[in-house]
Amino acid sequence: MTNKGGLEEAIVADINTSYIDGSIGKLIYSGYAIEDLAETTSFEEILFLLFNTRLPKPKEYESLRSTIAAEASIPDAVINMMKSLPAATPAMAVLRTAVSMLSAFDPDAENLSDKDLAQAKAFRLTGQITTICAAWMRIAKGQGPIAPRGDLSVAENFVYMMSGDEPDATACAALNVYLVLLAEHGMNASTFAARVVTATGSDLHSAIVAGISALKGPSHGGANSEAMKMFIAIGDVDNVLPWFEQNIKTGQRRIMGIGHRVYKSNDPRAGILRRHAEALAESSGQRKWLDIAVKLAETARADDYFVQRNLYPNVDYYSAVVLYLLGLDIDMFTPLFAMSRISGWSAHVIAQMGGRLIRPKANYVGPQDRKFVPMDER
Amino acid sequence: MTNKGGLEEAIVADINTSYIDGSIGKLIYSGYAIEDLAETTSFEEILFLLFNTRLPKPKEYESLRSTIAAEASIPDAVINMMKSLPAATPAMAVLRTAVSMLSAFDPDAENLSDKDLAQAKAFRLTGQITTICAAWMRIAKGQGPIAPRGDLSVAENFVYMMSGDEPDATACAALNVYLVLLAEHGMNASTFAARVVTATGSDLHSAIVAGISALKGPSHGGANSEAMKMFIAIGDVDNVLPWFEQNIKTGQRRIMGIGHRVYKSNDPRAGILRRHAEALAESSGQRKWLDIAVKLAETARADDYFVQRNLYPNVDYYSAVVLYLLGLDIDMFTPLFAMSRISGWSAHVIAQMGGRLIRPKANYVGPQDRKFVPMDER
Repeated sequence: MTNKGGLEEAIVADINTSYIDGSIGKLIYSGYAIEDLAETTSFEEILFLLFNTRLPKPKEYESLRSTIAAEASIPDAVINMMKSLPAATPAMAVLRTAVSMLSAFDPDAENLSDKDLAQAKAFRLTGQITTICAAWMRIAKGQGPIAPRGDLSVAENFVYMMSGDEPDATACAALNVYLVLLAEHGMNASTFAARVVTATGSDLHSAIVAGISALKGPSHGGANSEAMKMFIAIGDVDNVLPWFEQNIKTGQRRIMGIGHRVYKSNDPRAGILRRHAEALAESSGQRKWLDIAVKLAETARADDYFVQRNLYPNVDYYSAVVLYLLGLDIDMFTPLFAMSRISGWSAHVIAQMGGRLIRPKANYVGPQDRKFVPMDER
Repeated sequence: MTNKGGLEEAIVADINTSYIDGSIGKLIYSGYAIEDLAETTSFEEILFLLFNTRLPKPKEYESLRSTIAAEASIPDAVINMMKSLPAATPAMAVLRTAVSMLSAFDPDAENLSDKDLAQAKAFRLTGQITTICAAWMRIAKGQGPIAPRGDLSVAENFVYMMSGDEPDATACAALNVYLVLLAEHGMNASTFAARVVTATGSDLHSAIVAGISALKGPSHGGANSEAMKMFIAIGDVDNVLPWFEQNIKTGQRRIMGIGHRVYKSNDPRAGILRRHAEALAESSGQRKWLDIAVKLAETARADDYFVQRNLYPNVDYYSAVVLYLLGLDIDMFTPLFAMSRISGWSAHVIAQMGGRLIRPKANYVGPQDRKFVPMDER
């Protein structure tokens, strides 16, 4: 079997977390349509669902929420490391380093076999990543970080830790929907990276660090940042048409956040996020970015090139507007993706634990049978 | 195509760095038999070979050696981070964190497309990983780290930075051979993890961090540590036979460092390392560990179970003895593996840059068509 490059046809695992039918724009989490979950559940319920294949009862939910909140603080040594970094360090590099460093302070970090402990570590990391993201936004601006509160959900705690003010309900709702929608998405590149690491018997922190490392790439988690940079470069809804024509003329024909490796129809997450972008635009009075995004999407939908190739706005496209209207710097977009996807990564990692080493083959095309020549004769 | 689990049959890339024929115990680097390179080249020559598909001329070699040595120092912030970690932190977790942190201080870290810059970064990281490894050995013991010297090779600098004494020639030769032999080995799990990360467009540091994360696993880079722990548990050459019989009786029949996913014959690296273990045992007068290793290998070779399954000592088996006789703590064995393999990882990463996203599929076996029930009705 030759299957060079993207491994598009290889099936690497049985999973029960999510199913995608890209041809009809369908995404389910453990049997529930994403449209049914998005507006009705908290991110913590989704975490429970991905780990247990069922939704939590009220007591189970509150137990999980309070555990995550109680363990979300991060050691002073990690804060000091973050303070020692140049302010211009990409937030994904900060997150990758901080998560890696956290393992040194987790008493269960090096337990490589106990799946219950792994789940407890994953919950702890979920809260800690929330804290790292909020802390870095402040540290990069020369402000002191704010500690998490025990009475809040993940979405509420993040909004709270950004400013220290009582979290705004509209913002928390939008962020929660974002976290729910991004939590899990089958065998994507970062999830696969986390599984490859786990299959060597390595630890949960190593697997999540690998997931963050993969998500950092512009072709994966970096797409939401690129979409927002594009909206800013366009700058005004009146510039959409000339920008689009210029984009076509240069032969590039690539619009960040439009088109997806799996979805060849609507990405069901895009429509939900578009509605939340509408709500945030309404409440903030800032319609500009959403107007640009909608106009550009409509322009692409009317163009043969995009129609023939089934290129639709994906989750990154409207989430860019949502995250920007939540007050996040563009550099923080991909870390927020990681803050959600830690849930899916961890569920995959725990399922992979104890599994077979993942080691594909390479095809050697280099020289053969060379005679060695000592350096002084070269 | 279904290809669950280990992806054994999938071919993911054309490469020109190394070729392995496991059936006859053959390993080549860009056309040169490993046996011809091991005793004749420095690790820096191998780095050059893996990046350029040819061995360096004397001036090219000296330029590479001096560049690596000159850029091998690490920022105070990274040293301070290491000092803030608990002394019991696994060295691989320290290395993973330190390499991740180094990106924040590398002016070219976020250049994602320039292959020449990526090569320069890889050379810099090679020296820096050497320094991190030596520094952590000292920091974990409460000693101050020693800065690298500009006039030494990678192997010499590591031996020097362990103690600050003029490096011993026998030790440097053994370490250099180790670094040469471990530099590259086709599409192994850590190299593949680094490629998966690179295929998202992510940066070199992220890819190397993922490689370290995968190498950390006991089924991959952790095997040399496990082999040494086994030799220590056996404790004396007279205990080999009873230990072996007990091992068989318990039905485990697994000997760390014997057997390999690819080699179904002699691992050519094992014999070379055995000779260097001999030399170190001779010069140090410490024969015990080598005697145990040799006796155990002979016992396994005389046992039907191991013969029928073609289980031979692999590179980890004798490298454990070499590294131990070099004065390394067992916890440092896998970081030394990484110090060598950074070369192969980087060559693969640069070849992968600009390539297609690696995204296999999963097979959903979970529930379907569930009706959502609000939390208060569950």
